[in-house]
Amino acid sequence: MSRIRARLLKGFRDYMPANMLPKERMLRSVASTFESFGFSPLQTPALEYADCLLGKYGDEGDKLLYRFLDNGDRDVALRYDLTVPLARVVAMNPQLTMPFKRYQIAPVWRAEKPGRGRFREFMQCDVDIVGSTDMMADAECMAVGCAVLKNLGVDDFVIRINNRKLLTAMLARFKVTTTEEAMGVLRAIDKLPKIGHDKVRVLLATENGLSESAIDGIFEFLSLNPDELSAWFEGSEDGQAGAAELTEVLELARELGVSDHVEVDLSIARGLDYYTGTIYETFLRADESIGSVMSGGRYAGLVAMYGGQDIPAVGISLGVDRLLYALMEMGLLDDTANPADILVGVFSAEERSLSYGLAQTLRDAGINVAIFPGRPRMKKQLQYAHRQGISKVVLVGKTEAERGEVLLKDMASGEQETLTVDALIASLKSVL
Amino acid sequence: MSRIRARLLKGFRDYMPANMLPKERMLRSVASTFESFGFSPLQTPALEYADCLLGKYGDEGDKLLYRFLDNGDRDVALRYDLTVPLARVVAMNPQLTMPFKRYQIAPVWRAEKPGRGRFREFMQCDVDIVGSTDMMADAECMAVGCAVLKNLGVDDFVIRINNRKLLTAMLARFKVTTTEEAMGVLRAIDKLPKIGHDKVRVLLATENGLSESAIDGIFEFLSLNPDELSAWFEGSEDGQAGAAELTEVLELARELGVSDHVEVDLSIARGLDYYTGTIYETFLRADESIGSVMSGGRYAGLVAMYGGQDIPAVGISLGVDRLLYALMEMGLLDDTANPADILVGVFSAEERSLSYGLAQTLRDAGINVAIFPGRPRMKKQLQYAHRQGISKVVLVGKTEAERGEVLLKDMASGEQETLTVDALIASLKSVL
Repeated sequence: MSRIRARLLKGFRDYMPANMLPKERMLRSVASTFESFGFSPLQTPALEYADCLLGKYGDEGDKLLYRFLDNGDRDVALRYDLTVPLARVVAMNPQLTMPFKRYQIAPVWRAEKPGRGRFREFMQCDVDIVGSTDMMADAECMAVGCAVLKNLGVDDFVIRINNRKLLTAMLARFKVTTTEEAMGVLRAIDKLPKIGHDKVRVLLATENGLSESAIDGIFEFLSLNPDELSAWFEGSEDGQAGAAELTEVLELARELGVSDHVEVDLSIARGLDYYTGTIYETFLRADESIGSVMSGGRYAGLVAMYGGQDIPAVGISLGVDRLLYALMEMGLLDDTANPADILVGVFSAEERSLSYGLAQTLRDAGINVAIFPGRPRMKKQLQYAHRQGISKVVLVGKTEAERGEVLLKDMASGEQETLTVDALIASLKSVL
Repeated sequence: MSRIRARLLKGFRDYMPANMLPKERMLRSVASTFESFGFSPLQTPALEYADCLLGKYGDEGDKLLYRFLDNGDRDVALRYDLTVPLARVVAMNPQLTMPFKRYQIAPVWRAEKPGRGRFREFMQCDVDIVGSTDMMADAECMAVGCAVLKNLGVDDFVIRINNRKLLTAMLARFKVTTTEEAMGVLRAIDKLPKIGHDKVRVLLATENGLSESAIDGIFEFLSLNPDELSAWFEGSEDGQAGAAELTEVLELARELGVSDHVEVDLSIARGLDYYTGTIYETFLRADESIGSVMSGGRYAGLVAMYGGQDIPAVGISLGVDRLLYALMEMGLLDDTANPADILVGVFSAEERSLSYGLAQTLRDAGINVAIFPGRPRMKKQLQYAHRQGISKVVLVGKTEAERGEVLLKDMASGEQETLTVDALIASLKSVL
């Protein structure tokens, strides 16, 4: 067998334990928050027929598909997101009880130019409520989003909401009517927090060809208070509907006790053209520059692509990598590579069974325990604990065992104390 | 946009909530058992350079790779298992602290002919200890395997162990020396539980061309007790080493308190040719016909394929689909599609905030709560709970709220009772 150089594809990465362990913990918390709201997990295959994905992400998206002929000459592609596979599942399963509330946490693949923080394989994490037109579904997505962040220890964040119908009505007023033109203007508005008012004005004039008065009008719209919307949109069906929906979702957010975290921001645009109502993006106050950590909205048309009647849906999606980065920066997750709360040291071959017995007792009490396989010198065992970031080591020899005690060593302070196994368990549990 | 028929690729499947929820629960339990033994999660990409995978699974394996040219004309393939990517990671990261104990739970892809229970995408779930030659590492893999099954509620199982060195020595004695011949004989022996003694004799004679006396010798070997091995293999280095290793691992299993679940079975062969020492397979006593639910062993040579010195490793791998099937058959997991422990009903728009407040109180107490978005008639809400397999519904109106009470309805018996929120929480927690 010839020797091959071990290497990774560009744009792909290994999550080593120091990154994967916090990511796992974050995703486990997220999944159990989703379940606490009655969302069920769904899993779809990584590979789909290419025609089930093509044409749903625009021309740009089609180009980014990992698409190939499989061994049976089928035209297949790796999934590009979790929304289109959800639409496929709903189309194929008319027996589903509605509303269908599902979550999915899974990797997706896009052949993008890799760059800072941009990878060709990355995790998506979506919750969606399919089959309900009630604005309570929109509000529930915000509530589950708030609970996700709070359960991860983040309290200072804001969900900025808007309604796509308001943007549509506003664009219609200024004669921006084709989808392409509309997307261009929305993309320019989306850049407001990054490049500021003046540069967006220039973009709208040069790239989107808007008149001075239209641009003034757009900025007038952006500065409106929610209670001025209805009057501003007098005579516009979309404008009235958007204003009413926005008012209702704000009222429901109050009912759900999350209105402290919700703010109207008429410049929130969301790039994708399938949104039809509420849209949201979420920012951490500690660092807004990392961008939205959770976004989504109400959409339509997806299920109808597969034939049959369309089914309404609303969802919110977590930016897994961004959120993980933020939580680690904020010290809410640490990058310890080993899940063990403690290492049980082994004195000698004769006393080894005491160590393994203690390890089992601790595990039965819900504590994660490492033990160095074999009987290396104590120095090597302590070094292992140190390198793995395991902050406590416990030792038990014949002498200690006869007294019903163990010797606990704190790796950081170097302090040692003798205590009973029960006291050790209590002290470890109090930290967890 | 043309309408496309929604469909799945052959050999692929959607895990709908009724299957995915128990699978998630099983895998969460497995992951936390792994972590309780100090194994850390690792995640590698789905796509690898094809040459990093080719030639490591034999010619058959190479043919089953999902291999293609990506948009940049790189020769890439979807991972076929989790062991070769682990070897790549170890080769690329010489800084890793040894022993490196990692687990990975992830899908793999094989372009096999789909059949009953055989899919082209399936989940693998591996733990490995890399960098330790100590037999305690072999024993620890058995111990973590036992803990995995016990934590899932399975007590009646057996890990059948053998040692590849014994098989090598036995084959050498009967002049079966080429790898190809050896694999043929081992595959025949592997079929013993399925096709029985007589048919294996026929196979060994006709397909493997063994003499009558060699076949008698093989069956003599298979009937040996562990304490007869050393004498039987007098003069064979491999035989003596294998017998000593088997004796030691049995002794360590006793020290770890798992020997009740460990049995020597000299017919356990494991098809792959990279095993070098201990090998194991695990059967559930309730249904041995579903095959091994957990298998593995000690192996070498993998890391060396990528150049540099070789590093010893031992691991055990869960058969996710088989185990999930068995747990559901045994009633240890149920196929409820919804994670909610209870549905909170909504009486009316005016009383809705009472319902959402109660839902939040229950969630804060660690209970999973569903609530139907919107305000449909009560009948529809109860129907939803019924269809989703949610067995309890709780109602709170103004009258109940004033008295600090709620109305609990059991969906199966139809019984109703009035109780306080604290009593409701206590009763729900007692079931979880």
